[in-house]
Amino acid sequence: MIDAALPHVVIIGGGFAGLWAVRALADTPVRITLLDRGNHHLFQPLLYQVATAGLSAPDIAAPLRHILRNQPNVTVLMEEVSGIDPAGHRITLKDGRHVDFDYALLATGATHAYFGHDDWAKHAPGLKSLDDALDIRRRILSAFERAEATDDPEERKALLTFGIVGGGPTGVELAGTMAEIARHTLNHEFRHIDPSHARVMLLEAGPRVLSSFDPDLSEKARLQLQRLGVDVLTGAPVAAIDAEGVQLGERHIPARTVLWAAGVAASPLACTLGVPLDRAGRVSVESDLSVPGHPHLFVAGDLATIQSDGRPVPGVAPAAKQMGKHVAAVIRDRLAGRPAKHFRYRDFGNLATIGRMAAVVQLGRWKLSGALAWWFWLLAHVFFLIGFRNRLVVMLNWTWAYWTYQRAARIILGKELKPGS
Amino acid sequence: MIDAALPHVVIIGGGFAGLWAVRALADTPVRITLLDRGNHHLFQPLLYQVATAGLSAPDIAAPLRHILRNQPNVTVLMEEVSGIDPAGHRITLKDGRHVDFDYALLATGATHAYFGHDDWAKHAPGLKSLDDALDIRRRILSAFERAEATDDPEERKALLTFGIVGGGPTGVELAGTMAEIARHTLNHEFRHIDPSHARVMLLEAGPRVLSSFDPDLSEKARLQLQRLGVDVLTGAPVAAIDAEGVQLGERHIPARTVLWAAGVAASPLACTLGVPLDRAGRVSVESDLSVPGHPHLFVAGDLATIQSDGRPVPGVAPAAKQMGKHVAAVIRDRLAGRPAKHFRYRDFGNLATIGRMAAVVQLGRWKLSGALAWWFWLLAHVFFLIGFRNRLVVMLNWTWAYWTYQRAARIILGKELKPGS
Repeated sequence: MIDAALPHVVIIGGGFAGLWAVRALADTPVRITLLDRGNHHLFQPLLYQVATAGLSAPDIAAPLRHILRNQPNVTVLMEEVSGIDPAGHRITLKDGRHVDFDYALLATGATHAYFGHDDWAKHAPGLKSLDDALDIRRRILSAFERAEATDDPEERKALLTFGIVGGGPTGVELAGTMAEIARHTLNHEFRHIDPSHARVMLLEAGPRVLSSFDPDLSEKARLQLQRLGVDVLTGAPVAAIDAEGVQLGERHIPARTVLWAAGVAASPLACTLGVPLDRAGRVSVESDLSVPGHPHLFVAGDLATIQSDGRPVPGVAPAAKQMGKHVAAVIRDRLAGRPAKHFRYRDFGNLATIGRMAAVVQLGRWKLSGALAWWFWLLAHVFFLIGFRNRLVVMLNWTWAYWTYQRAARIILGKELKPGS
Repeated sequence: MIDAALPHVVIIGGGFAGLWAVRALADTPVRITLLDRGNHHLFQPLLYQVATAGLSAPDIAAPLRHILRNQPNVTVLMEEVSGIDPAGHRITLKDGRHVDFDYALLATGATHAYFGHDDWAKHAPGLKSLDDALDIRRRILSAFERAEATDDPEERKALLTFGIVGGGPTGVELAGTMAEIARHTLNHEFRHIDPSHARVMLLEAGPRVLSSFDPDLSEKARLQLQRLGVDVLTGAPVAAIDAEGVQLGERHIPARTVLWAAGVAASPLACTLGVPLDRAGRVSVESDLSVPGHPHLFVAGDLATIQSDGRPVPGVAPAAKQMGKHVAAVIRDRLAGRPAKHFRYRDFGNLATIGRMAAVVQLGRWKLSGALAWWFWLLAHVFFLIGFRNRLVVMLNWTWAYWTYQRAARIILGKELKPGS
């Protein structure tokens, strides 16, 4: 049994920040409660593969309590948190119950932001959870099915037009993979349509895709996308999205499937803290990742905003893991009466995959693109996947997909969504 | 392109009956349209493995148009059919459009029957589709999660009580696997509950489980279930099911998770034919599987009821495949002006799995139970799975599950369902 007299550390969110914090506290004399509204840790960097039918949902997720089964000082509870009272050291659950803490870490990550156009959400879903991925998979596959079934040439064209809003890593991955599906996977399987005539548009408001990379790699990414068949539109801010398509300036492009990869906003729990938030709803944390004025409460991962070496720490998995581990170290320091260290982000580089044999990699001044970058990306991602079995299954799926151009998870689950539903 | 002058054969439903009929017509000069409301063929015999988190949904399903990509005389359309006019040779789709046919096969299978208690459906879901399986998986895994989170001992006990209604093959599979999950898979992962104390009840109204087998195999199945930890209650008709649990005669057993494996009813499309149906809603077909009075319309699979050698043909996959192939043969005979043959069911035997190393097999007078029966069942099912890749993935998953007692797909998808929702 867990000693109830030990300090109670409550960690909200079992993503990279939360899970790495829990693990780093394995040998610390604390009792830990990990709260998550789902039952699994999600390997988010491969989520786009579930959305594009390359992997099954369980391939990139593992139950939190299974991952932590051998760490006796942690209790995993599937609970949704509705509020946090930093001064009262108290967390409120959705059903009204309370959890008191000595230390707490809020690591609930980010959600989609539609820049004040919340009505776009139903027409252009974003990609953050497994449910989002299955919804997007259903929309993509159903669009081809409906194009095959319709007799109306205008409708068919709109069904075979796909818009991806946002030229960051997620948008680039989705666009590249969708072009591959249309050109290779679905080829020869339809009688009334030619899937390879589908139009995949990547719509980026700024001047270039992958703006977190150096400009020469952005250009290489654009060329690789175009070679895969993606229509890359930069300087193309979306003015409106409705059930029929997207509005680009004066032009309305009929597109029945629009995906959102443009904006992220911090999870709404941050609002319950009563501290100032930045424009994206993130908490500006102290250098030790604590919330200003509340040294016992920490924020890590995509929900936190902080500078390191004069630059903002990016919202990527390695940063979240490092923050999680840092919070664990600060809690240990506090318990031992030592001063807490400042968080410093170690940037190991930036990777983005584009499609088959296409990727860009930037590690400091070392840059790669094309096939070599793709192999590098692939090995790095399989290596970091949690759980031996998942790695094996993902490798098997990818090997199979590579040689056959097929995708393992081309199954429409749930009700078909009509456009605009 | 498909020659529009050829006779048009419309097949409704891409299950075993429909898909085997389509394949058997590959070299016949007809144009075929396969209508299914989903995009995939489902290997239903392994559906309980998806429900119990052993396999992912895509492991046991393959896109119909991918399976049929090399058969040029077939068009696959993802459409829902709302009615059939046998005399007018016309099918009505859900959106109001029509499809005319020269020959049609209705093979939409069965759904759950609650014997007039449709209000039980929301408390006790049945298992027919992948969506059903994911719903059941979510309920089973969420029950353990909620039991860990609650402080109320009565509620905890009710959450850890699982009722499976119906002692046929599906009920036996579900009960045996759920007992294994509770006793082995989830062991040591919880802090407040001991999952191995969960109670799994198999509730059968009749005097024995697996009544389609000989009585001595039913008895062996009962013993194997008990050894796995299942509470087998025979002669236990369920009087009521509500959000709290099940009513057995005078006794109310609190059980937050109840699954329905008791009754099947024919798919409601049969009602639109205007022909007499049996008590379960199935169509009594002629000896050539045509609908009485409508020689151009056939029914096959679970939706048809017919005698063969003086006994009713069972609602199992081999029977559906044989019926599908027979309908194809009858259509060929009609086109050639030959008399149609009578359908005759070739019974290759009866298999049911119970759990790890536990199964029963009856092949004529040859009977097996225990480990050998289990190996036989396993090889037969992997062999019949469609698609080389699926077979490989399922084998890998099973090997992994066998050695580790783990289950690959322990991921809760979709919103958590509160009891009674």
